[in-house]
Amino acid sequence: MKILVLNSGSSSIKYQLIDMEDESVLCSGLVERIGLEGGVVVYKKAPDTDAETKTSIDMEVPSHNEGLLKVIELITTGETAVIKDKSEIGALGHRVVHGGEYFSEPTVVDDEVIKGIEACIPLAPLHNAAHLAGIRVGADLFPGVPQVVVFDTAFHQTLPEHAYMYALPYELYTENKIRRYGAHGTSHKFVAGEMARILEKPLEDCNIITVHLGNGSSMSAVKNGKCVDTSMGLTPLAGLVMGTRCGDIDPAVVAYLARNKGMSVDEIDTLLNKKSGLEGMCGMSDMRDIHAAADKGDKRAAMAVAVQTYRNKKYIGSYMAALGRVDAIVFTAGIGENDDIVRLESLRGMENLGIVVDEAANAERSSEPKKISADNSVVDVWVIPTNEELAIARETRDVLAS
Amino acid sequence: MKILVLNSGSSSIKYQLIDMEDESVLCSGLVERIGLEGGVVVYKKAPDTDAETKTSIDMEVPSHNEGLLKVIELITTGETAVIKDKSEIGALGHRVVHGGEYFSEPTVVDDEVIKGIEACIPLAPLHNAAHLAGIRVGADLFPGVPQVVVFDTAFHQTLPEHAYMYALPYELYTENKIRRYGAHGTSHKFVAGEMARILEKPLEDCNIITVHLGNGSSMSAVKNGKCVDTSMGLTPLAGLVMGTRCGDIDPAVVAYLARNKGMSVDEIDTLLNKKSGLEGMCGMSDMRDIHAAADKGDKRAAMAVAVQTYRNKKYIGSYMAALGRVDAIVFTAGIGENDDIVRLESLRGMENLGIVVDEAANAERSSEPKKISADNSVVDVWVIPTNEELAIARETRDVLAS
Repeated sequence: MKILVLNSGSSSIKYQLIDMEDESVLCSGLVERIGLEGGVVVYKKAPDTDAETKTSIDMEVPSHNEGLLKVIELITTGETAVIKDKSEIGALGHRVVHGGEYFSEPTVVDDEVIKGIEACIPLAPLHNAAHLAGIRVGADLFPGVPQVVVFDTAFHQTLPEHAYMYALPYELYTENKIRRYGAHGTSHKFVAGEMARILEKPLEDCNIITVHLGNGSSMSAVKNGKCVDTSMGLTPLAGLVMGTRCGDIDPAVVAYLARNKGMSVDEIDTLLNKKSGLEGMCGMSDMRDIHAAADKGDKRAAMAVAVQTYRNKKYIGSYMAALGRVDAIVFTAGIGENDDIVRLESLRGMENLGIVVDEAANAERSSEPKKISADNSVVDVWVIPTNEELAIARETRDVLAS
Repeated sequence: MKILVLNSGSSSIKYQLIDMEDESVLCSGLVERIGLEGGVVVYKKAPDTDAETKTSIDMEVPSHNEGLLKVIELITTGETAVIKDKSEIGALGHRVVHGGEYFSEPTVVDDEVIKGIEACIPLAPLHNAAHLAGIRVGADLFPGVPQVVVFDTAFHQTLPEHAYMYALPYELYTENKIRRYGAHGTSHKFVAGEMARILEKPLEDCNIITVHLGNGSSMSAVKNGKCVDTSMGLTPLAGLVMGTRCGDIDPAVVAYLARNKGMSVDEIDTLLNKKSGLEGMCGMSDMRDIHAAADKGDKRAAMAVAVQTYRNKKYIGSYMAALGRVDAIVFTAGIGENDDIVRLESLRGMENLGIVVDEAANAERSSEPKKISADNSVVDVWVIPTNEELAIARETRDVLAS
């Protein structure tokens, strides 16, 4: 079966067509600036292979519908074609950011599911509304083809109450659904599964800390294969230091900014989400720029790395306490896979907790899973590339087969 | 030397007169409802001894000045007298909640110090203004007697940059002084010092996690005798679950409440500080009530304890990671000293991290320091009563002698 994986944003669609026979990616790309001036459709045939070709088309894209129509045209006709007819696509798999407490599993789309995603709009207003647009367009353009929604929050629905409840008035949970939900669940689940496979142990016997460090960053504690804690909260603002998001701060900072700088709640929300994190501390959010600047003596760049990696380290320690026994720590996503400095600093000085890094192995680049802990490390540490699109495709296949 | 220790609030003065010869408390008490109807002055002679007598006087107390005058009268005349003349009082020691980045040590009051405390008013509006009132009254009523200010934040001024900086725009630190300051420093420093004395090691060789669990709760990581991290932040709202304070939450909860419940920033601030924590989760903030209710099957009470102790456990784990090697964990303050269930649950399942609790020792009550870890525990765990007034008196004596 060939599965089209879609990640619909408010003005964009990321897509990938995967042949589940061999899990190869037939094509992938991005429709950008939907409904805005300067739209563009990017299409890669056979991406990340020697045969990769890239097509970039500047065109107005008035709606998600026309964006996806263009993608179908590229997939099925001319030089760019990878299939003969869109009827070869057996299923659509949609990434959905927020499933609230409604969804703990990938789910085949029907009217009830649509209502559930709508009910979660207050928890992720921009994202969920855009996903629904993508699902409607999918139904229009692929009538009769099953659509599956895979939720970023689903893997974290196994969190025990003591990990998801905030110490807030109880009715804010029962009436307003305020609790920890987490995000990046598809990635955390994927790399936990890969880790178990590599360890040659059933996932349900594994205790793993998964460390997803990308533009957004989060960490999860996985006990006996189930997620028992995660660093993102009600929203993806909480937890680790990110590119432009602050992660954990004293929540009183919000009132302090309102009182002492006269900022509105919306201004503060934008500041914490878009102008903070690494960008806020040192004016850069790309780790390569930050390391280069730090090497040249930029003290704020060095500080940003120190704050980020110290936060990582504290979270690892807290999840070691939560899990009691840890089989492995897995780093993944853009920074987690590629930034050996961040990995090393996040683990430095933890020998007494059973973590010993093999610095040479850590410094080596690899696109394959690799172990970066020393042989005398009690806890295995690995780098495992994540693949959220493949994970969504697998989940889509599995839920349709069940 | 006899030292009068004062903790001035906006409508109250807590006081204690300590004879530094033997560190005995000659008297202690509280002036309440200053400037309000229904004022009361409570006075205990020889408190917590067999000779304790308690006097409670209902009287209007129009100002801090008249409140302290009444205390001086009780101290020096009639049945309640413990000294003959106020001239026997050699120094006043004031608790001050916030010293910002100005004060890292106890300091003798002069005009510059007053200005420094005033400069910190935005960081602790109610507290610092009240402390200044107490200092002025002290100067009026004890002319020529040295006054020393002991700051709740001072012990935490050794935090390294990576622990005190938030991942926020850098100018919020340089221009608005937004950073982690912590609180309860006098208590953390006191029990860390006591722990080193018991371990018979110099404090500068000791790595200790100090766990202050009271109405307000905080935890500190002490490395080689210096505080390197602490759970409270810009304000005492952050970190652990407290009686009515939420501790750590997703900071986006504030914007969520503003948008979805139409609350103002001030209303949200009050909710997070006064209506959250244990009280918010289960409607009770006294641990004895909460345990009793949980024993009777109250699920929210049991949940509140689970959330609180799980947060404690995660912080202990994160500070173990921060410290690398830990000699001892110390529990102190009301809950830390008296609640064996909270201690046990906060440490449960951490054997792999070197923590083994002696459950029988933990269950025993004692007003003396006691070890509650098992002999095979790599990390010592102790319960050590805190004594902030004695700590302030000692700091006052020491800064005057230096």
